[in-house]
Amino acid sequence: MTHTLTLPRSVEWKETFISLLDQQLLPNTVEYIKLHTLQDVWDAIVTLKVRGAPAIGITAAFGLALSLQNYDVQTIEEFKKKLQADKEFLASSRPTAVNLFWALERVVNSINNAISINEAKTLVIHEAIQIQAEDEATCYRIGDYALSLFNKHDRVMTICNAGSIATAYYGTALAPFHISKERDIPLKVFACETRPVLQGARLTAWELQKSGVDVTLITDSMAAHTIKTKGINAIIVGADRIAANGDTANKIGTYGLALLAKAFNIPFYVAAPKSTFDLSIASGAEIPIEERSAKEITHIGDVQVAPDNISVYNPAFDVTPSEFITAIITEHGIIHSPSVDTIKLVLN
Amino acid sequence: MTHTLTLPRSVEWKETFISLLDQQLLPNTVEYIKLHTLQDVWDAIVTLKVRGAPAIGITAAFGLALSLQNYDVQTIEEFKKKLQADKEFLASSRPTAVNLFWALERVVNSINNAISINEAKTLVIHEAIQIQAEDEATCYRIGDYALSLFNKHDRVMTICNAGSIATAYYGTALAPFHISKERDIPLKVFACETRPVLQGARLTAWELQKSGVDVTLITDSMAAHTIKTKGINAIIVGADRIAANGDTANKIGTYGLALLAKAFNIPFYVAAPKSTFDLSIASGAEIPIEERSAKEITHIGDVQVAPDNISVYNPAFDVTPSEFITAIITEHGIIHSPSVDTIKLVLN
Repeated sequence: MTHTLTLPRSVEWKETFISLLDQQLLPNTVEYIKLHTLQDVWDAIVTLKVRGAPAIGITAAFGLALSLQNYDVQTIEEFKKKLQADKEFLASSRPTAVNLFWALERVVNSINNAISINEAKTLVIHEAIQIQAEDEATCYRIGDYALSLFNKHDRVMTICNAGSIATAYYGTALAPFHISKERDIPLKVFACETRPVLQGARLTAWELQKSGVDVTLITDSMAAHTIKTKGINAIIVGADRIAANGDTANKIGTYGLALLAKAFNIPFYVAAPKSTFDLSIASGAEIPIEERSAKEITHIGDVQVAPDNISVYNPAFDVTPSEFITAIITEHGIIHSPSVDTIKLVLN
Repeated sequence: MTHTLTLPRSVEWKETFISLLDQQLLPNTVEYIKLHTLQDVWDAIVTLKVRGAPAIGITAAFGLALSLQNYDVQTIEEFKKKLQADKEFLASSRPTAVNLFWALERVVNSINNAISINEAKTLVIHEAIQIQAEDEATCYRIGDYALSLFNKHDRVMTICNAGSIATAYYGTALAPFHISKERDIPLKVFACETRPVLQGARLTAWELQKSGVDVTLITDSMAAHTIKTKGINAIIVGADRIAANGDTANKIGTYGLALLAKAFNIPFYVAAPKSTFDLSIASGAEIPIEERSAKEITHIGDVQVAPDNISVYNPAFDVTPSEFITAIITEHGIIHSPSVDTIKLVLN
């Protein structure tokens, strides 16, 4: 039996506007904003109302589809010029977002051979919708593979939000849980709150609750005790970047969970699409770790929780060596014991 | 060379009042309140203005010394009756605080053989001061032993606040850092913020900063990455209860740090006075783990960080099996490879 999830999409194409879940307001307020103009789309990306590389790419692609409706042009050449300018404008919203550039490029390239304005308009909208559909299919395949690694009633731990709202639908690390709900397979999820930015508490807890998945929130410091006392069977996380040897950069806290998984002899899984692999870097040592502002740790909302002028170390990501990763789950299949060779085998 | 620390005491006897650091207001406001009456003392304990088992016991002992100054009694029998009544009143402030009962009992017993009111008054005040002095001496010895395990420029990680403000002075796990400052031995401390109640961010960061110790604040989730990238040499923590075999209950998050210490092959130390050992229990399996309210996790101050009605698991402590503890540092010496036998050897 397949249920329809009660979990909404974070980005939806509505012909004359884009409906966007404002992730900045979660979990206290669930509000969908309507983006009517290219400027609206740019603002939404800049102010982090949409987050998650795939979701940002999809929103930007729809942004181009939205903008062209108001083009006052007579020739296909003028149309292409306009679209190129809009693309460049949107690309300036998050200067390091690879998915954003990729999606915009793909939409612009889709009209390379268009000979009429009407054809170009149709192609752009089609390409944007296609990007979203492909991402959903990718996430679904990842979730399907991941779910094959779990048994009924398994208790699974996760961190951060590798979730549906960060993608077209289903997410990556959270995809097996959403699909388990569709298929009526009971799983129990323990979500680490994910300090300092609390994506686990604010987003994953909300998203899984919305889907009707059995989710329990813990602080990151409770992982070891929870694995032991609640009998956690596996840990699954997303990824920001995976090196050629399988070393995985992901939200800070991931590395510690991988070491705990080893200590408790339970599998540690990474769920990520092929696009997350960066085969140009040999190992995790080449992945630069962004350090963010002290205020993320010293303040929560407007509440100050540490003394003035305290020294803070705030790395946003850590790198889990591939030796601690049981398998990487991609849309092309499961890479067991990830290494240069096993990764090539599945991805090529 | 020995420096005088700039760190203040959390409890001080001032003849006509008790000066108490209001730990509820830290780290944003450093305020010393004056306790003039027995009721003031009771209120301060109940409202958690003073925390840490030794500090609570000391405050209560001084509370009796304060109260007797206003006794309107003519005989030593009346005096003893009054003191007994005051003791019972203060004992009702924190019904499960062992140190509180122990300190009050000790003060009351100190006048068992008193034959005059004046003698009794002197004895009570002397005993209260003695309790504080002994606790400071205990902490100093623990710190001295602990410091012998570190080398100049070592980088040491800790969690929660096993600190000076929780004791007469110096604290337990933090004692070596304060003493290193007195002796001009440079150490670098990394303090885990200690979710959910943030004692690391609010108290340890403040206390070590106040002493002039080089302290850096991290979230609990950053421990693994910090151990690796900052070259942490050791982890030291306090304890709430230690079983006969060395299994140690301490603030949630401790167990995870112990497993990380093993993974990175660095020593994991527990610092605690003899009074923390409960030799009546064979192992940590017999230590009940308190579960606290969901709100500690879902809210920080008035800021809600998780969705309404989310399931929460909030254990306040975890138990670290003694096999993961390199040594327990007590005022009687260092217990290497803690076990029933090695513990008996040092404590008896």
